Amino acid sequence: MGELLNKNLSALIDIKKEEIEKFESFLIKRTVSKKQNLLNHGSVCRFVAFINKGCLRSYSVDANGIEHITQFGVENHWIADLYSFLNQTPATLNIEAVEDSEVLLLDFSNLEKLYKSIPGLERYFRILFQNAYTSTQRRLNSTLSISAADRYNELITSYPELIRRVPLIHIASYLGITPESLSRIRKRL
Amino acid sequence: MGELLNKNLSALIDIKKEEIEKFESFLIKRTVSKKQNLLNHGSVCRFVAFINKGCLRSYSVDANGIEHITQFGVENHWIADLYSFLNQTPATLNIEAVEDSEVLLLDFSNLEKLYKSIPGLERYFRILFQNAYTSTQRRLNSTLSISAADRYNELITSYPELIRRVPLIHIASYLGITPESLSRIRKRL
Repeated sequence: MGELLNKNLSALIDIKKEEIEKFESFLIKRTVSKKQNLLNHGSVCRFVAFINKGCLRSYSVDANGIEHITQFGVENHWIADLYSFLNQTPATLNIEAVEDSEVLLLDFSNLEKLYKSIPGLERYFRILFQNAYTSTQRRLNSTLSISAADRYNELITSYPELIRRVPLIHIASYLGITPESLSRIRKRL
Repeated sequence: MGELLNKNLSALIDIKKEEIEKFESFLIKRTVSKKQNLLNHGSVCRFVAFINKGCLRSYSVDANGIEHITQFGVENHWIADLYSFLNQTPATLNIEAVEDSEVLLLDFSNLEKLYKSIPGLERYFRILFQNAYTSTQRRLNSTLSISAADRYNELITSYPELIRRVPLIHIASYLGITPESLSRIRKRL
């Protein structure tokens, strides 16, 4: 089911074949067509999703109806409304497929069981959360301290592929600027 | 050395007395006077610091000389430039004591050793990073999508104590606004 996930796990932790098989037995495969939602704001996020194929985005909608993108996720990454998942409270985010996608879903109670039976998973998710935390902290710092043009440059340098896969309207939303401002920034480059 | 840390560990994981003693044997106690730096931008962050007493802040300084606060830390919390610590690269943040403080420092190579000899620490730091990640993600979302006045309200509701302990100039910097804007917000309340 999850050759990519298998490699992803093995790259970070020592994990036995039987443990990978056990982990995989708890996953549910799901396809999500482009523009279809995997999670709707207001419902509880019952899963973390490993992206086998495709690209998804998580986003909130503010009081003025403006979308703010929290995360883009492509193959070999996880996506969720983690706060909703961990607290089992209604999601503040939507998760939508930007391309036709295939995900492997792991639900809350199963993950708690798996932490107990495969202790290596504590290390695996410790490393994932640690990396996600530092990159979110750096994004927050950039948002507060550098210009949108510099943030756009950082983004295309770090994730050149994203620009080819994601509509510019979503890139603008991720940077916290209007599509018109993004057009001006791109013209000046 | 670390009664508070002892309780902090025991609240999150099952940990034996010998393991706590081992953990503590790797910690170095340090006092930091008010306004003194624990970490300087440009030097490698060699430690994560558990705050036994006091209050510290981590912050960056942008090209215009303006400070942006990444984190406040009080007793019973950890503080570091985590990206610098994990990658052992020069810090982009400074860490300064807001009050006379006492910290317990754990260095990079010792933490890696401790993960191997006390496996429960993987769970402990998995939970800490997971919580830090979700709260940073929520702060980023608020920064992008709600007004400074609403963010100020969120902050004083979640951390009422902070306002009493931290100068308003730092609260403004944390919110990404000028001290004058913060004054106007506070007058309107």
